[in-house]
Amino acid sequence: MFANKMKPRFALSRYIPILKWGTHYHRADLPHDLLAGIIVAIMLVPQGMAYALLAGLPPQVGLYASILPLIVYGIFGSSRVLGVGPVAIVSILVASAVGGFAQSGTVDYLQLALTLAFLVGIIQLGMGLFRVGFLVNFISHPVLAGFTSGASLIIGFSQLKHLLGIDMPRMEFFETVTYALTHANEADPVTVMLGVLSIAMLLYFKFVLGGQLERAGVRHAIAIPITKSAPLLIVLLGTTAVYFFNLNESASVQIVGNVPAGLPPLTMPTMEIGTISNLLPTAFIISFVSFVESISVAKALAAKERQRVSPNQELIALGLTNCASAMSGGYSVTGSFSRSVVNYDAGAKTGLASMITAVIIGLTVIFLTPLFYYLPKSLLASIIMVAVFGLVDIKTFRFMWQYNKEDAFSMIITFVTVLWWGIEKGVLVGVGSEILLFVWHASRPHIAVMGRMPNRDIYLNAARHDVITCDRVLALRIDQSLYFANVQYLEDAVFRWLQKCPNMQHFVLICTAINSIDASGLVMLESLQHSLDEAGVTFHLAALKGPIKDRMIKVGFTDEFGIEHIHKTTHEAMVVIGCE
Amino acid sequence: MFANKMKPRFALSRYIPILKWGTHYHRADLPHDLLAGIIVAIMLVPQGMAYALLAGLPPQVGLYASILPLIVYGIFGSSRVLGVGPVAIVSILVASAVGGFAQSGTVDYLQLALTLAFLVGIIQLGMGLFRVGFLVNFISHPVLAGFTSGASLIIGFSQLKHLLGIDMPRMEFFETVTYALTHANEADPVTVMLGVLSIAMLLYFKFVLGGQLERAGVRHAIAIPITKSAPLLIVLLGTTAVYFFNLNESASVQIVGNVPAGLPPLTMPTMEIGTISNLLPTAFIISFVSFVESISVAKALAAKERQRVSPNQELIALGLTNCASAMSGGYSVTGSFSRSVVNYDAGAKTGLASMITAVIIGLTVIFLTPLFYYLPKSLLASIIMVAVFGLVDIKTFRFMWQYNKEDAFSMIITFVTVLWWGIEKGVLVGVGSEILLFVWHASRPHIAVMGRMPNRDIYLNAARHDVITCDRVLALRIDQSLYFANVQYLEDAVFRWLQKCPNMQHFVLICTAINSIDASGLVMLESLQHSLDEAGVTFHLAALKGPIKDRMIKVGFTDEFGIEHIHKTTHEAMVVIGCE
Repeated sequence: MFANKMKPRFALSRYIPILKWGTHYHRADLPHDLLAGIIVAIMLVPQGMAYALLAGLPPQVGLYASILPLIVYGIFGSSRVLGVGPVAIVSILVASAVGGFAQSGTVDYLQLALTLAFLVGIIQLGMGLFRVGFLVNFISHPVLAGFTSGASLIIGFSQLKHLLGIDMPRMEFFETVTYALTHANEADPVTVMLGVLSIAMLLYFKFVLGGQLERAGVRHAIAIPITKSAPLLIVLLGTTAVYFFNLNESASVQIVGNVPAGLPPLTMPTMEIGTISNLLPTAFIISFVSFVESISVAKALAAKERQRVSPNQELIALGLTNCASAMSGGYSVTGSFSRSVVNYDAGAKTGLASMITAVIIGLTVIFLTPLFYYLPKSLLASIIMVAVFGLVDIKTFRFMWQYNKEDAFSMIITFVTVLWWGIEKGVLVGVGSEILLFVWHASRPHIAVMGRMPNRDIYLNAARHDVITCDRVLALRIDQSLYFANVQYLEDAVFRWLQKCPNMQHFVLICTAINSIDASGLVMLESLQHSLDEAGVTFHLAALKGPIKDRMIKVGFTDEFGIEHIHKTTHEAMVVIGCE
Repeated sequence: MFANKMKPRFALSRYIPILKWGTHYHRADLPHDLLAGIIVAIMLVPQGMAYALLAGLPPQVGLYASILPLIVYGIFGSSRVLGVGPVAIVSILVASAVGGFAQSGTVDYLQLALTLAFLVGIIQLGMGLFRVGFLVNFISHPVLAGFTSGASLIIGFSQLKHLLGIDMPRMEFFETVTYALTHANEADPVTVMLGVLSIAMLLYFKFVLGGQLERAGVRHAIAIPITKSAPLLIVLLGTTAVYFFNLNESASVQIVGNVPAGLPPLTMPTMEIGTISNLLPTAFIISFVSFVESISVAKALAAKERQRVSPNQELIALGLTNCASAMSGGYSVTGSFSRSVVNYDAGAKTGLASMITAVIIGLTVIFLTPLFYYLPKSLLASIIMVAVFGLVDIKTFRFMWQYNKEDAFSMIITFVTVLWWGIEKGVLVGVGSEILLFVWHASRPHIAVMGRMPNRDIYLNAARHDVITCDRVLALRIDQSLYFANVQYLEDAVFRWLQKCPNMQHFVLICTAINSIDASGLVMLESLQHSLDEAGVTFHLAALKGPIKDRMIKVGFTDEFGIEHIHKTTHEAMVVIGCE
């Protein structure tokens, strides 16, 4: 059956996209992929180490998470430009989940992080295979924006300890802020200076240098590697400074220290029931959040090239990528917004770019780790801080506040609960609140009295247009489907109008906006008809949608209601009533 | 300000309805109120004792809950015919909540029941004063039906121990059924015989006698008291039998025993923080469930007389009624469906009927309690069983299954979780599931390709009607508001059509059914416009609702979209496109 329906080759390449682009690889694409791969690697080395520290893991774990996973994604990913690897928000989620069960720096902590990555992989793989990728649509823009903003603040402030060079226990957000403010006097001046200089340099490269190069007529292909190399440059300069001035001993600047050389061994993470059930809630949240982040940027970039990414294939690819990370000493990875954009801008054409990045990181791990011994932690902290504070999304909030207060409310509530209750609970509260708001909103629909446009058979809201109404007839349009939470609201409105209009003989419910009527709605219509009947008012339905009418006929509703009182259009109803 | 807006007298009588009907009481109403009051009392004496046993309380508590509460309801209730007092479902909720913290029969248990009633009273009073009665609209018909059916089964089977005369510990539903079946051989034969005879008699009175009396030409006013007196009759006959044949000793039939004589003292229930937080979740559920049960029957009966009940006033009245019950030795009460209908049928005109019932119960408590000494518990159990098995609502389920599978699913899931996880969790799961189903449903809206009716400017679903379409133009109508969970679905549908129709030059989104567009929806429209633009397709919106358009203009969406591409009607759009 399978073979009859489609060519097996086609089916396989759908699940393993490298079979498609790999077998038709254009030689002309190679320089582009090569350049993009190198630039992303330049960003990824310092980012990988920094995000690993953020996750409470040794820096090399961030590099391990940037080798095999990138190769696996290159094989299975449906996006050609997505830059997977460690990202800030997933890292803080890892820290918050694993930190609850083990002490950062211990073997247990590392083991739990590997297990968590594997769980995330399994969940994403499962979601992809069962094609339930649509579930992430329930994380709306406001919730995502509120979550990202809140998480970014948490991440940024969590780095204050490295930037100030002080010891700080694991704490809630507000405690962290208070602690940092009250202990600022204990800060190590040289550490702070290094951090501040590095932040200044990063900001200069990020916001100023690009424009200057452009104005100086530097080609795009050269300008991008220059502007994106700021973190690497800082790492090199900072490490050199510490080494030459012996700052780690003379000024107690904290350094990364010994980073083991060589590729990580392939292992299987431990999977005990107890551990799994502890980590499962966060594993689900990471799976969703990581997928949302990946698919948004992947879709945006694919659209520019008129390509499409398949959400479920992306889930499969990310799932396999996370499993690969867990089995090669890495931790949870996802598509990075910034690196994907850079990858695209630098001209990446296929998944080969991702694989080239992986090879460079692999060479770094084998040959260059001794260089990182004197790397000051405050520099990695400054890289994280500059990256995440840009994610605090005030612009989106302002837009939502203007457009729709409810969306703005969802964003605020997510933002605030993320800060107060932690990131995982924040997401859950955000999604819950937007669903409740949606239902609440739908329970108080807009109801308009409708009138006829002069000399046209078009009926419009009498409150907004100059239309003709007729006092024997009340025509109401409810701008919502009828369902349990709003049937009472409609019934009350009808009775209110019934009291106001003593001459009313006909009530027409205009159903253009009624997309479905649930059982509670049908029961209400039945009882409303009885009440109107006793009051001497005939009840009409106009412009009722076909599928709803069919079901009404099926359960015998129309027998009592009178099929002759259901009209195709509002105008038809008015003609029958004699009030057109 | 208050005095300016309305006469204080009117305002006061709104909150204390007795001021309205009491000051204009018609003498002609007295015989009706008197008869109705007596008949309800005849039902209430055995029911009150039976439901108290069901709640795990001594029988007199059910009678105490039928004195002061009925007087208070008569004063504050906006329904003239609602018969308040103990009911089966609230009783089982009390048993399930209090049974978790104390042993039935102890003083602690009784104290907790009083506290629970007081909490319910406070919650209902608060809901009424803050006018949030609409919240109960979120308990839909399917959930209510599933809940009632499940709770009725639990109640019915919980009475098996009395009917069989065996000891049975407090257990989950399925354990109870299994236990009863495996221990049926230990049943006391005389107890079982009494119970079975009593059930047969109750069923005869309930289903057969009414018709026989009618055919014999007995007047309605006489037939009702006769048919409704079955429980009282059984109590009298059973008690007499036990007394004369000494069944409580010769055959170990369990009897009610000593019921203290006299009115209960007025007391204040204990309110400790620990107790309150234990009981609060169930108190909320009882508040909601009891209100839903009361308001449904009150509204149905008021509509017959073209009167209206005020939901918030009903909450205030029920709240005060429950407080009164807690302060006079009773437990949680609510409006009983069966007694309210009997009250109405028997001709009750005002709250005086309720007060007359209270006086009769009061006299019973003072003078007649010695009569109940030999009353067998199996008779009370049979009364409960016959009352509740009628509530297992297969008819509603069949209707929902036919009309709307989702409603049927909500009903089943509520029913099953009530049986598996207990009544309180069942309600929560039911409400949660219907909200999720609603959101899920709204996330996969119906999308129709629209065409023009020949020689009319009316546009209908091309799949259902014989209409004219034009291959340069795709006109889609989405039958749902645009919001976070469905924007992806619409975008995917548009892209699918874009692939199918190579000649497409214009895409018209017909917005008749779009009642609101949230921020996620607006962001999607923006990106869809960019994509269509690049594909050489012009994007139009037709029949967009005024308030939505206003907000689009406010946030500058229309600047980029082009206000000239937003049309008042579908036809107008087609005329502009040149494809009418």
